[in-house]
Amino acid sequence: MFNFEFQNPTKLVFGRGQIARLAELIDKDTKVMLVFGGGSVKTNGVYDQVKEALKDHQTVEFWGIESNPAVETVREAVKLGLEEKVDMLLAVGGGSVSDATKCIAAGIAMPEVDPWDMVVSYSAKKQIPFATVMTMPATGSEMNNGAVISNRTLCQKLAFRGAYPVFSILDPETTYSIPSYHIACGLADIVVHCFEQYMTTTGQSRVLDRWAEGVIATVMEIAPQIRENKTDYALMSDYMFAATMGLNNFIRMGVTQDWVTHQIGHELTAMHGITHGESLAMVYCGTVEHLREQKKGKLLQFGERVLGITEGTEDERIDATIAGIEAFFKSLGLATRLSDKGLGVETADEVARRLNARGVHLGEAKNVTGDVAREILLKRL
Amino acid sequence: MFNFEFQNPTKLVFGRGQIARLAELIDKDTKVMLVFGGGSVKTNGVYDQVKEALKDHQTVEFWGIESNPAVETVREAVKLGLEEKVDMLLAVGGGSVSDATKCIAAGIAMPEVDPWDMVVSYSAKKQIPFATVMTMPATGSEMNNGAVISNRTLCQKLAFRGAYPVFSILDPETTYSIPSYHIACGLADIVVHCFEQYMTTTGQSRVLDRWAEGVIATVMEIAPQIRENKTDYALMSDYMFAATMGLNNFIRMGVTQDWVTHQIGHELTAMHGITHGESLAMVYCGTVEHLREQKKGKLLQFGERVLGITEGTEDERIDATIAGIEAFFKSLGLATRLSDKGLGVETADEVARRLNARGVHLGEAKNVTGDVAREILLKRL
Repeated sequence: MFNFEFQNPTKLVFGRGQIARLAELIDKDTKVMLVFGGGSVKTNGVYDQVKEALKDHQTVEFWGIESNPAVETVREAVKLGLEEKVDMLLAVGGGSVSDATKCIAAGIAMPEVDPWDMVVSYSAKKQIPFATVMTMPATGSEMNNGAVISNRTLCQKLAFRGAYPVFSILDPETTYSIPSYHIACGLADIVVHCFEQYMTTTGQSRVLDRWAEGVIATVMEIAPQIRENKTDYALMSDYMFAATMGLNNFIRMGVTQDWVTHQIGHELTAMHGITHGESLAMVYCGTVEHLREQKKGKLLQFGERVLGITEGTEDERIDATIAGIEAFFKSLGLATRLSDKGLGVETADEVARRLNARGVHLGEAKNVTGDVAREILLKRL
Repeated sequence: MFNFEFQNPTKLVFGRGQIARLAELIDKDTKVMLVFGGGSVKTNGVYDQVKEALKDHQTVEFWGIESNPAVETVREAVKLGLEEKVDMLLAVGGGSVSDATKCIAAGIAMPEVDPWDMVVSYSAKKQIPFATVMTMPATGSEMNNGAVISNRTLCQKLAFRGAYPVFSILDPETTYSIPSYHIACGLADIVVHCFEQYMTTTGQSRVLDRWAEGVIATVMEIAPQIRENKTDYALMSDYMFAATMGLNNFIRMGVTQDWVTHQIGHELTAMHGITHGESLAMVYCGTVEHLREQKKGKLLQFGERVLGITEGTEDERIDATIAGIEAFFKSLGLATRLSDKGLGVETADEVARRLNARGVHLGEAKNVTGDVAREILLKRL
């Protein structure tokens, strides 16, 4: 293992009825800005639970965080938070709301810095405290220190790092009303998060290899069952818990990572509005196919341990492993090729141009330039 | 999953050369009491590294924490800490030193309470800050909020809970000089920690089942390699990391536990001075043999997933699984029966008497009284 430092201070409050605990989790004299997306929390009862729990607190509401949250919206929320002199933020919703809240928390703490400059610098040096009520498992944002923000004007989507949520409440019952397509995208997102922390040089950490494999195997096991029954508490608990454990920095301690698929996927989202999880399903098999020599050891290990692929030559087993991963994404009903979304070579060219313009060298081996990203996408036409 | 709350604030600082970072990890104006065991840290260079790192800090040294740390020793350390008005404690050594330090931290914060009364009440309500330099992987004490303290006068060994270490430094190179017997006990301890959080009702958490299996599989895989080479950095990193991950509250989120083997093992240690890890190796197969009906589902799952046992009737597979676990303990060179240590029925009787006197009902199903503990031990004569 490489030298590492790890500290994740987020308090996780998991289970039925836990939203009511907001009343004690937040000090009575704290003025809280509640940050919401669209209206789904009004129809699924979460809004009412939050308001009831905080009925003795001073609260302000900000509505309208969109999918792939925009810095333009963040700026409006920062303005409201500053005007209202709020002490703390509470994100109520999915990963987009949580990510936006992290950026708003920085904007309020550093009113002299434009939020986009903070995103571009990749690091929020100061944030007011924030917490989450997570209702859409996928991003792990409820227990990590990262966020991804889009800039509509510049048509860009970039990640930054800062503080962790003070606490996050996860009630699996809040997931019962998530539309099936969004669950599918969430499941794909969880799996690719684990892959990007796992599909690297072999032999770095025996424990974390198995932990990443364990989260992926879990998601692959529950996905078809969730399709049949979205209101099974045990099943939705496993789903919600897998999302948090997949990206709370646990499985990346002391090992290398490789976020190529996410970075290419972000471009597809920025350019064509593809939902994040689906963008990953479209790119991932291209990444491992193009880098199959570099990722050979892990592909073989994953194939054997998780997919049970033990027969054939190494090349045949790698082919079967990549096919197995693609079959999983397809089983979710997601696009796995550019053409599934009416995209083609011109998209690959444009991604190459954009990444080359930023001069990136992505991935574990820093060998994925814009041109290599193009090759990856050409494998997914 | 059951409702749960999880928060583990310990900062983990892992890797080569990290002891030097004490200089920045502890504020310059903090007066630190260093807590040591015997002299092994003087021969393996750890003492020198700690002193060098803290050469600009005010430090006091307390020496003499023994294996199965005694409250009698803790009282002496509390006295020194109060006299010297120390602000913080730094445990330098193994789990015993770390556990004792947790108790000393409570004793200094609550000078009006005798440390043993605090242990008996199972909860340290106040502690001064403490951190660790962990040199003997096994107990997970470096990243959890528990400790086990013995009372020589009363011949008892009990656990309590309190705060987490502020930080813990883990440098795998410090493990190179651990005697082979202590490594064997550490490996057994890690495995049984995982078992006691895993060998319960099936179907509680798909992710955590796999994470517990992952730590156990790792230890079973590396044990024979460590026997051959105790100075392989990657191997000793996996060992050290497995110990921390096995008992830092990660794998117990929202699931039931069953600490029967530990509680019986503590009696063997209190009565006969058996080293903790070896006491577990002597008891564990008795526990699962006696409770084989209750633990059937998990024994079958563990046998299949970790030991590859898929053939035969359920009873045959359970037999093979328990035999496989015993074979692992034997491969470590540890005793697996009372008779291996010259003990017999009279020990089982005495354990029963002691546990019955405390009126315990141990385990996931609260069905292990002193009499049941006797039955368990009779299976390990």
